Amino acid sequence: MRKLMKERLVGVSEETTTGVKRLYQMQANGTLLFPAINVNDSVTKSKFDNLYGCRHSLPDGLMRATDVMIAGKVGVVCGYGDVGKGCAVALKQAGARVIVTEIDPICALQALMEGFQVLTLEDVVSYADIFVTTTGNKDIIMVDDMKKMKNNAIVCNIGHFDNEIDMSGLENYPGVKRITIKPQTDRWLFPETNTGIIVLAEGRLMNLGCATGHPSFVMSCSFTNQVIAQLELWNERKSGKYEKKVYVLPKHLDEKVAALHLGKLGAKLTKLSQSQADYISVPVEGPYKPAHYRY
Amino acid sequence: MRKLMKERLVGVSEETTTGVKRLYQMQANGTLLFPAINVNDSVTKSKFDNLYGCRHSLPDGLMRATDVMIAGKVGVVCGYGDVGKGCAVALKQAGARVIVTEIDPICALQALMEGFQVLTLEDVVSYADIFVTTTGNKDIIMVDDMKKMKNNAIVCNIGHFDNEIDMSGLENYPGVKRITIKPQTDRWLFPETNTGIIVLAEGRLMNLGCATGHPSFVMSCSFTNQVIAQLELWNERKSGKYEKKVYVLPKHLDEKVAALHLGKLGAKLTKLSQSQADYISVPVEGPYKPAHYRY
Amino acid sequence: MRKLMKERLVGVSEETTTGVKRLYQMQANGTLLFPAINVNDSVTKSKFDNLYGCRHSLPDGLMRATDVMIAGKVGVVCGYGDVGKGCAVALKQAGARVIVTEIDPICALQALMEGFQVLTLEDVVSYADIFVTTTGNKDIIMVDDMKKMKNNAIVCNIGHFDNEIDMSGLENYPGVKRITIKPQTDRWLFPETNTGIIVLAEGRLMNLGCATGHPSFVMSCSFTNQVIAQLELWNERKSGKYEKKVYVLPKHLDEKVAALHLGKLGAKLTKLSQSQADYISVPVEGPYKPAHYRY
Amino acid sequence: MRKLMKERLVGVSEETTTGVKRLYQMQANGTLLFPAINVNDSVTKSKFDNLYGCRHSLPDGLMRATDVMIAGKVGVVCGYGDVGKGCAVALKQAGARVIVTEIDPICALQALMEGFQVLTLEDVVSYADIFVTTTGNKDIIMVDDMKKMKNNAIVCNIGHFDNEIDMSGLENYPGVKRITIKPQTDRWLFPETNTGIIVLAEGRLMNLGCATGHPSFVMSCSFTNQVIAQLELWNERKSGKYEKKVYVLPKHLDEKVAALHLGKLGAKLTKLSQSQADYISVPVEGPYKPAHYRY
Repeated sequence: MRKLMKERLVGVSEETTTGVKRLYQMQANGTLLFPAINVNDSVTKSKFDNLYGCRHSLPDGLMRATDVMIAGKVGVVCGYGDVGKGCAVALKQAGARVIVTEIDPICALQALMEGFQVLTLEDVVSYADIFVTTTGNKDIIMVDDMKKMKNNAIVCNIGHFDNEIDMSGLENYPGVKRITIKPQTDRWLFPETNTGIIVLAEGRLMNLGCATGHPSFVMSCSFTNQVIAQLELWNERKSGKYEKKVYVLPKHLDEKVAALHLGKLGAKLTKLSQSQADYISVPVEGPYKPAHYRY
Repeated sequence: MRKLMKERLVGVSEETTTGVKRLYQMQANGTLLFPAINVNDSVTKSKFDNLYGCRHSLPDGLMRATDVMIAGKVGVVCGYGDVGKGCAVALKQAGARVIVTEIDPICALQALMEGFQVLTLEDVVSYADIFVTTTGNKDIIMVDDMKKMKNNAIVCNIGHFDNEIDMSGLENYPGVKRITIKPQTDRWLFPETNTGIIVLAEGRLMNLGCATGHPSFVMSCSFTNQVIAQLELWNERKSGKYEKKVYVLPKHLDEKVAALHLGKLGAKLTKLSQSQADYISVPVEGPYKPAHYRY
Repeated sequence: MRKLMKERLVGVSEETTTGVKRLYQMQANGTLLFPAINVNDSVTKSKFDNLYGCRHSLPDGLMRATDVMIAGKVGVVCGYGDVGKGCAVALKQAGARVIVTEIDPICALQALMEGFQVLTLEDVVSYADIFVTTTGNKDIIMVDDMKKMKNNAIVCNIGHFDNEIDMSGLENYPGVKRITIKPQTDRWLFPETNTGIIVLAEGRLMNLGCATGHPSFVMSCSFTNQVIAQLELWNERKSGKYEKKVYVLPKHLDEKVAALHLGKLGAKLTKLSQSQADYISVPVEGPYKPAHYRY
Repeated sequence: MRKLMKERLVGVSEETTTGVKRLYQMQANGTLLFPAINVNDSVTKSKFDNLYGCRHSLPDGLMRATDVMIAGKVGVVCGYGDVGKGCAVALKQAGARVIVTEIDPICALQALMEGFQVLTLEDVVSYADIFVTTTGNKDIIMVDDMKKMKNNAIVCNIGHFDNEIDMSGLENYPGVKRITIKPQTDRWLFPETNTGIIVLAEGRLMNLGCATGHPSFVMSCSFTNQVIAQLELWNERKSGKYEKKVYVLPKHLDEKVAALHLGKLGAKLTKLSQSQADYISVPVEGPYKPAHYRY
């Protein structure tokens, strides 16, 4: 008789924020059927894919979808987490003036230290040129905000689902007209003014909808986390090391992911001597940082 | 009869890496006599003081000590932790070409993503113009390295003690001559070549020795952590909330430190709605991030 | 009887470097049949289209053609004129390490002041990842250079014709294989190694071949120069102001082009008082700079 | 009998904007007694000393005079010429938000393309933290502006004389109090509010008053221009090459100044082949650019 899939599975690895949240809920409920490794919170995932991936693919998506000159424009980045940090710096580097909206005072203070103005959406909605949501939350830019925007303001999301931007409110706005300029690039006209805004990728992830997502190098970091997690689960399947819980990838494996990517970029690491390692109380071969280290 | 000090003390707060390490050792040994709060690992300390403080005070120290033009020079930053990140970006922004040395592959990969070359000290010792140690370790630049440097290479430390740079080896080098150009700025001549290097602040923290340390705004973040920690210890002195252990500052207080500094910089925070807060499972008033969040 | 075209034409305006060169030759030869305005050398053309246009469209072309992650890579920019300056900063901002090649010591010193290494192509040909020609000259990257490059090095031109890169030498290399990955993106395999390089747009302008050229805002600056030049020629057709020579656009018109573009970006100009204007010996309404001013 | 000085002098070289202006006036009046070389308008002077010198020495002066944290602050740069460009980028790199004021629409558009907001002083006077004048004009910041500034706003000049900032108006303001914090750093209190502003170097050049001026490398470029101009005048004193007029330094000598500074920074120039030189119609050994080229 065939075994059930859950009996044949030795574990699971997961790299998305949303998926990881579900796993922690299952762990809390006691419904997690096998060990799980959360690779979303590996440093080589969250601090690379989210940050450097978006720094690349936000301007890529904007340029492919709209051909707009970013220099000289006012960009609003809603949220200054890893994704928001990548987006804000990308717009700044391209010559835009960038304003950040934030709920978290720590992230807001980080934005200020990088020279970004921190305001509310209400403050800037009437004069900004490009709006980007990166929050992972919902209801960030509502249809009432969109009505107040300049003609041909660009509105896009690179954070989460198509509820960061109130697509439902926009679609159901009485008398609104949607003009598809090209696939994934729509102009929405409000009847009161007959002017409108440009919404990318129907409010879904614009780097996937309007460009080709993150470049392969940074995805290689993410997927190496997956592969290493799978190998770890397989190698330890009989050792009892992993119970029916959610684990983050051990730091020495997180460091291994990074190490595997250095050669391609011509980097050479320095080696600790034994006495140096002893001096800072780490093994010569790593891991080098405590679990709470923030990078 | 007077009580002993340890009986009168209700707790301690500590903001240096080295001091915190001692407290954790005392906790491990069972010799910690009262609760301790580690404010070194508050986000508003480590990610501000170390990073933005040094971004400011490294060039400040270099300019006050040497008046050297940073643009066009090759700068080597040993270590790419928070201090190293601040130093590397400061030199880059001033127009230097920056090379990073690292032992940790994750930090090395971060350096690469920011456009820094990652090499070993040996690779660059003969041609770089400015060397900065930021590691918190010892024996980073040895006297044998210093002998190989260009005439008038600048060597300084902004990380830890005066053993990051091998000052002892330098002072005891046979025939070496020390010429004090001005206080905290010495030229050391090697007898073999009669050329030499410029060492700042006798290998101690150059931003303190050659400039005035970090600017007050960033120190206000650090000291607000101290004050809030002291208030917390005092307010909870009878509640039993804190045992004879080392604690990090609770995240809502870390966020409070940041919030207290936003007004000065003209920032306005966005407020979460209740339904948004529920959607991401945080309280409306924060804290907003899980403990492991890296900022 | 119909008049010949040359008799009906009142003048010509020209915005390309190559076209302008021809006009100056005709002036020298006495074969110029009507007045000509060189708008290529308007500040609002050469310092905008060439510099900011390429800063935008180089990464755009690279991303559309190859999806390559620019961060962490070594980019070589051949030439550090206006086009090269835009390209070098674009790659740097995206996280690449950039090396510049130059013949002109002044431009080379400018590159150094911005933190770029200045080397020869020969120095870097074996380890760089992305090569960009911006010189306006020929024979910059020869087939013998291409043979020495890393597998999958990207080679492209954003300067001039398809002779900056030795396309002819490449096409005629014995045994070379061309594999078209997609239109305008070819992999060329050398028979000796069976590895190869990726050439964009067949060596022609990669921002036109692989992306959509410069964005409209910067082209509006260029084309406004054209329109204003045409109006000037027409309005002065009977005044004798313009002889059968090549003229640059008068500075007050160059300033007008800029002024027409400020409102869109929300800028507000300061007005000179009469006494301030007198103090620096310019008219209140401009032009504000001497002809030799370099911006 | 002794000859008059004017009869013994073979020529003069001058590197300041103001001095050069006087020479051109003398030439126009017919009162110029010997040949003069204007080295102020050498590229290796105006585009290096003014731009890169100020990028270095503005933050240097601010830090030495006030120890203020630049990150997070709002900086206003009045004027976006070479000096203003250096100042604006220096403040931006240090983490400030920078606003530019300009009279010239071309320079204003350049500022916008770099992400700076362009407003009038009136728009920003009440909320900015740091004000820097770079215009070379007078009456830029008047005492009535200073009265509207925030308590402890910093006001300084790096452009021209102490009339860019209305020092006379400030000193004569009824009831104003001057508190010297340290030499070259004064707090001026207005009687109406008992709050005040911090003025650096009594309104004179703050990099000279509060720091040590530009670093030696960039001054070496300026002074090499002087030396080469003097040698040229001497060598040609009998050839009749130079009449009693003002000349700019010939471009091949401007290029020579740059070439002499490349080795120190480890740069290697590419050499033109004869056929490449012919292709762009320049000599193999330079000069490489037409007189009107803007760098």
